[in-house]
Amino acid sequence: MWSTGLRAEATPPIVITAGEPAGIGPDLCIQLAQQAQPQAPLVIADPRLLQARAALLGLPLTIRPYQADEPAPSTAPGELWLLALEAPGSLEPGQPDPANAAYLLAGLRRAAQGCLSGEFAALVTGPLHKAVINEAGVPFSGHTEYLAELAGVEQVVMMLATETPVTGGDTLRVALLTTHLPLREVADALTAERLQRVLSILDHDLRTRFGIVAPRIKVCGLNPHAGEGGHLGREEQEIIEPTLERLREQGLKLDGPLPADTLFTPHGLQGADAVLAMYHDQGLPVLKHLGFGHAVNITLGLPFIRTSVDHGTALELAGSGRASGGSLAYAIETARRMARASQSTES
Amino acid sequence: MWSTGLRAEATPPIVITAGEPAGIGPDLCIQLAQQAQPQAPLVIADPRLLQARAALLGLPLTIRPYQADEPAPSTAPGELWLLALEAPGSLEPGQPDPANAAYLLAGLRRAAQGCLSGEFAALVTGPLHKAVINEAGVPFSGHTEYLAELAGVEQVVMMLATETPVTGGDTLRVALLTTHLPLREVADALTAERLQRVLSILDHDLRTRFGIVAPRIKVCGLNPHAGEGGHLGREEQEIIEPTLERLREQGLKLDGPLPADTLFTPHGLQGADAVLAMYHDQGLPVLKHLGFGHAVNITLGLPFIRTSVDHGTALELAGSGRASGGSLAYAIETARRMARASQSTES
Repeated sequence: MWSTGLRAEATPPIVITAGEPAGIGPDLCIQLAQQAQPQAPLVIADPRLLQARAALLGLPLTIRPYQADEPAPSTAPGELWLLALEAPGSLEPGQPDPANAAYLLAGLRRAAQGCLSGEFAALVTGPLHKAVINEAGVPFSGHTEYLAELAGVEQVVMMLATETPVTGGDTLRVALLTTHLPLREVADALTAERLQRVLSILDHDLRTRFGIVAPRIKVCGLNPHAGEGGHLGREEQEIIEPTLERLREQGLKLDGPLPADTLFTPHGLQGADAVLAMYHDQGLPVLKHLGFGHAVNITLGLPFIRTSVDHGTALELAGSGRASGGSLAYAIETARRMARASQSTES
Repeated sequence: MWSTGLRAEATPPIVITAGEPAGIGPDLCIQLAQQAQPQAPLVIADPRLLQARAALLGLPLTIRPYQADEPAPSTAPGELWLLALEAPGSLEPGQPDPANAAYLLAGLRRAAQGCLSGEFAALVTGPLHKAVINEAGVPFSGHTEYLAELAGVEQVVMMLATETPVTGGDTLRVALLTTHLPLREVADALTAERLQRVLSILDHDLRTRFGIVAPRIKVCGLNPHAGEGGHLGREEQEIIEPTLERLREQGLKLDGPLPADTLFTPHGLQGADAVLAMYHDQGLPVLKHLGFGHAVNITLGLPFIRTSVDHGTALELAGSGRASGGSLAYAIETARRMARASQSTES
């Protein structure tokens, strides 16, 4: 029903975790609040942090506190809608403090629980500094894994997207079969089971989260030239081809396995709603080349919508006013579109 | 002395092997000959093949036979300067014939010998069909390996280049540490010895073949995020970093190891005379995306200049008139520039 627009004012808010206090996450939230927001996103952060950082940036800031289950308000320039949490450690730019680890994780939990309950429409995460959380004695290997565990989900899929004219549509989307894995472990991580689960999630979420009725996915081979008929590796013939065949029988529209170097040409990308790359450095160079400063990281397979900025904490830029909000704006816009498409699909 | 231009007429010719008779190589040579050439390249092919293909394409063709040690003439539109060899097999487009394998290899040998003796300034190769040569009982794993063996060279380096504004210069060049290797063998193929040899050849040839006085090479890591301080693989710390350090002490200008996904952004490529990627699908997607239809494949480390088209035989397009000569033109232009730079360096 949301898609009719009649109850647009009652849409649950997008929630943003501002991320590492010593990084540029707080700066970007403050910079974003300088423009009037017809449907403000809700920021989770420490209000003292935001006030101190705004003073450092020389920007006006009025905190508007969140009331439970309040729909997204329209905010004036300089006004920031906040769900306040207290950070016990240092709030200095450039100096991450392990004492803030519990604060950061509490913010993530609060955001995820709100997404699960329907209080929030989607989660947008600001950048964290993994090592600092680990230093606090908390095992933490990244947002994606933490959120998957919170949601009780085993397999999630990392997908990056950027707007580009090359696909003939408006968006280039690249999902990864494996993500942060040493290269020598990649070939063994390609199993029929993993490939099937990842492709099923990708297809499902392209339909339900992006409103694409019959998504067409182009799948890279593992080896150069997609194995060249078995001369340059046999994973294509032994694992990828039979798995794609099974999934095609279930109605998925899959091309491949295709050689990555020609698949990523403008001609090769034509007609693809998403590309599935087998590993990190096969899939991301072209996307990051085209989407430099304007890419979004999306986690598929969660029971809620989560997007993220495509950059790190940039400690050296915190408080400088030189951090660019392009990726945060695009992450929010993408989350909003996904929330709208999800509502249309459900109604 | 050649670089003064005073003896330009006496410059040895660029030699082109037209490649597989059933493919588009002959078509491209005929199409090229439709424009007047102030310094014609010399084509090695069967004259009957060229005449038959020209008739099929509806293009005029006058063969001008090569005289030994003749410098490059100026040719009129429709005139093709030819070193004739006889192909005993089928000359039909679309149907590769193993009976032509010996003809193809004889052409390559003739061209390479001419390059080694100084009769020719550089070799540009048209596309071959490896499998057909193998079917004839000749072990052949590609131009590059065959030419390396002919020249008695152990290590050569494959480099692709394309013109692009993104590097801040005019050319994006990507060399590969490993080329046509199954992905699971890549990590073990990265040895300090291979890396040192490849970087030495790359640095040497950028100086001598491209006239770059102090080339700056940006080197990719093997693992995602270049290993992220050892968390995602240790090859960067154990092999790449110490090797780069040793070579820097010898005067090479090397950046890295760098994460491939950020190195290949427009910002990351700034100032690089070349990128060294660790493997095929890490290095080629961005280059082929930017250089689609206008890229050249260059073999470094040979005692002569060799460039190649960046496409295959395209059997289905042979004789159709729809083959595009962009890559051949760029391969010839690159070979010519390299020949000029080499003469300047030597003089």
